[in-house]
Amino acid sequence: MQKRIVVLGGVGFIGTHLCLRLLDEGHEVFCVDVRDAANSPLLRNAEQHPTFRYVHHNIINSFGIRCDEIYNLASPSMVRYNKALPVETLKVNVLGSINALDTARTERARVLFASSGDVYGSDLRMMCDGATGCSTHSILAEGKRAAEALHRAYQAEFGVDTRIARIFNTYGSGADLMDQRMVIKTIVAALQNRDILINGSGEQLRTFCWVEDIVDGLIRLMESPAAEQTRTVDLGSNRETSIRALAEKIVALTGSRSRILHVKDRPDDRRRLTPDITTARRELGWAPRTPLLEGLRRTISYVEKELSDKACASLTWAEMN
Amino acid sequence: MQKRIVVLGGVGFIGTHLCLRLLDEGHEVFCVDVRDAANSPLLRNAEQHPTFRYVHHNIINSFGIRCDEIYNLASPSMVRYNKALPVETLKVNVLGSINALDTARTERARVLFASSGDVYGSDLRMMCDGATGCSTHSILAEGKRAAEALHRAYQAEFGVDTRIARIFNTYGSGADLMDQRMVIKTIVAALQNRDILINGSGEQLRTFCWVEDIVDGLIRLMESPAAEQTRTVDLGSNRETSIRALAEKIVALTGSRSRILHVKDRPDDRRRLTPDITTARRELGWAPRTPLLEGLRRTISYVEKELSDKACASLTWAEMN
Repeated sequence: MQKRIVVLGGVGFIGTHLCLRLLDEGHEVFCVDVRDAANSPLLRNAEQHPTFRYVHHNIINSFGIRCDEIYNLASPSMVRYNKALPVETLKVNVLGSINALDTARTERARVLFASSGDVYGSDLRMMCDGATGCSTHSILAEGKRAAEALHRAYQAEFGVDTRIARIFNTYGSGADLMDQRMVIKTIVAALQNRDILINGSGEQLRTFCWVEDIVDGLIRLMESPAAEQTRTVDLGSNRETSIRALAEKIVALTGSRSRILHVKDRPDDRRRLTPDITTARRELGWAPRTPLLEGLRRTISYVEKELSDKACASLTWAEMN
Repeated sequence: MQKRIVVLGGVGFIGTHLCLRLLDEGHEVFCVDVRDAANSPLLRNAEQHPTFRYVHHNIINSFGIRCDEIYNLASPSMVRYNKALPVETLKVNVLGSINALDTARTERARVLFASSGDVYGSDLRMMCDGATGCSTHSILAEGKRAAEALHRAYQAEFGVDTRIARIFNTYGSGADLMDQRMVIKTIVAALQNRDILINGSGEQLRTFCWVEDIVDGLIRLMESPAAEQTRTVDLGSNRETSIRALAEKIVALTGSRSRILHVKDRPDDRRRLTPDITTARRELGWAPRTPLLEGLRRTISYVEKELSDKACASLTWAEMN
C-alpha cells in the first residue's frame, strides 16, 4: 500500500538513504530540508522520480503536509556547527519536534524521532561546575533529550503515536566529505596519503554501523505495532573496534602511504559509544548485518568517486579541518 | 537606582515573595502570569503599589517589555499538573525560555532562570526501558534541563547575560493550600487533626528552605558580576531532616491530635534532594538563614489565617488529595 511519508532532514546523510529506500518501496516521499536536494550526491537524480517531492523548509517554522508517517531526522549533526550555533541546534530539535508533532496530531500520522546515543551519559555534574560555569559541549545531546521528552509528552497527553531511535555512530556512502565523522575523515586522508591523526592511544573502542542497516532499523521501528508509551530503541553496531584498528584497516584497504600519528587526548570525550540492541533485536527482529570490511570497501569506492567527480582531490587536509 | 524588572510567574509561590521584595527595594516590577494577581494572598494589595504592574500573559507566546532584568520563574510545579499536562509543562519551560531570552537579547537585559534541583540524577536508563517505554514522570526535570541548555546557548551565541538557580525544596507563607508540597500539606492535616500519611519508613532525608532565603539568593545571583559562561548555583537548605521528624515537629507546634501513619513506599522517589551550596556561598556570600522551627511557626500562622479567611476550614483531606 502506497503511503505518504514525510522525511524531515531528507537531504542529510541518513535521510538520503531513507528517502531512496522508501521510493524503492513505492511510497510517496516528501523530502523536507533547508539544504537543496540537488546538492546531495545520492538525491541528485531522485527529483525525476514520480513520487518524490522536495520541500524547502526550516522546521523551526510550522508546516502542514498531509501524510501517514513522519520521520524526523532534521538536526545539525556536525560538532563544529553545534558549537558555533548552539541556539539553532536546540531550536531545530525542540521547535522542529513541536512542529512535527503538531502536524502528526492533526494528520493522525505516526512520528519517528531520530535521537542520538549521545543522550546517554550526559552527566550534569560534569557538564557544569560553579567555578567555570556550564559549557555548550553537549548541546546536541540536550536538544535530543528535550525532543525525546516532547515526544513522550505528546503521546501521553494527545495520543500521538511516537517512536524514538537512539542512533549511534553511522557510516557509509553518501556522507558529506566535509563532515568530520571519523570514517570519512580517515578515508579521505588515506586516499590523499596524508597523515592520519588519532587522539590519545587509539585503544578507545568505537562502533560503526552501516547506514543502510540503520535505515532498515528505522523502517522496522516505524512499522512496529503502536505501544502504550513511546517505543524507544538503540540502533547501532555492537561490534567494537579500536580507533587504531579502524585506521589500520582503512590504510590497508586503500593501499595508502599515510602514517598513523598520535596526538593529544581529548579530555571531553566521554560519550557512551556502544548501543544496547537487545530491545531492537527482540521487538523489531533487527540487528546490523553489514560487516565492517564490506562497508569500508563500499565507502572507499564512494569517496574515491566523489573526490574525482568533484575535482576536489586538491582539497587539503588543512582546509578540511 | 530604580530598575525595570520583569518577574515571569510573579503570581507563583516564590514569584510573589520576589515581587514584594523588589517593590520594597523601590523597583518597577512587571509581574507576568497566566494567573490573576488578585488570587494571590500576598499580592492582593500589591496592585495599589505605584510601581507594580500586572501583565496577564502566557509566555508560551512571545512578548516584549522594556526592562533591565528578567526573572523567569514561570513553570507549572505541581506534580499532578505536570503528569496531566506534560506538553504544557515542557512548552512553558522551553518556549517560555526562548521568548524570555529573545526579549532579553533585544533589551540587553539580564535573565535569571529558575531551574530545579530535580535536574540532578535524571538517569535516562532508569526513566526508559525497552519493555515499558519511557514515562513522563520526570517531565519537569527534562523541561528544566532543556531551558538551562537554551540559556547557555543564548549566552554563548548571542552574549545574552544569563544566570541559573537550581532551586531545591522551598516552603513558607504564601503557598497555595491546594499545593501538594510536603510542608503545607502536613500543616493543613495537622491543623485539621487529620491523619498525616508518610510514604515508607519516614527516615528519608529532605531539606526545606525558607522562601525569603531563596528570594535573597535569587537577587544576589542576579546582582553578581557577569561571568563568561552562564553562572549556575544550587539554592536550598543543606540541613537534612527526616520526613518523620518534620511531621513530628509540625504536630508538636500545632498541638495537633493527628496520627502519623506510614503508607507504602514510592518506588519512583529518586530525586537528589540536598543542594551543594558551596558555590552560592563562595560566589554570592549566600546561605540559608532561617531556622526550620522559626519558618514552620510562621508558615503555620499563615495557614491558620488562610483557612479561617477563606472559610475553607471545612475542606476535607480527601478533597485535597
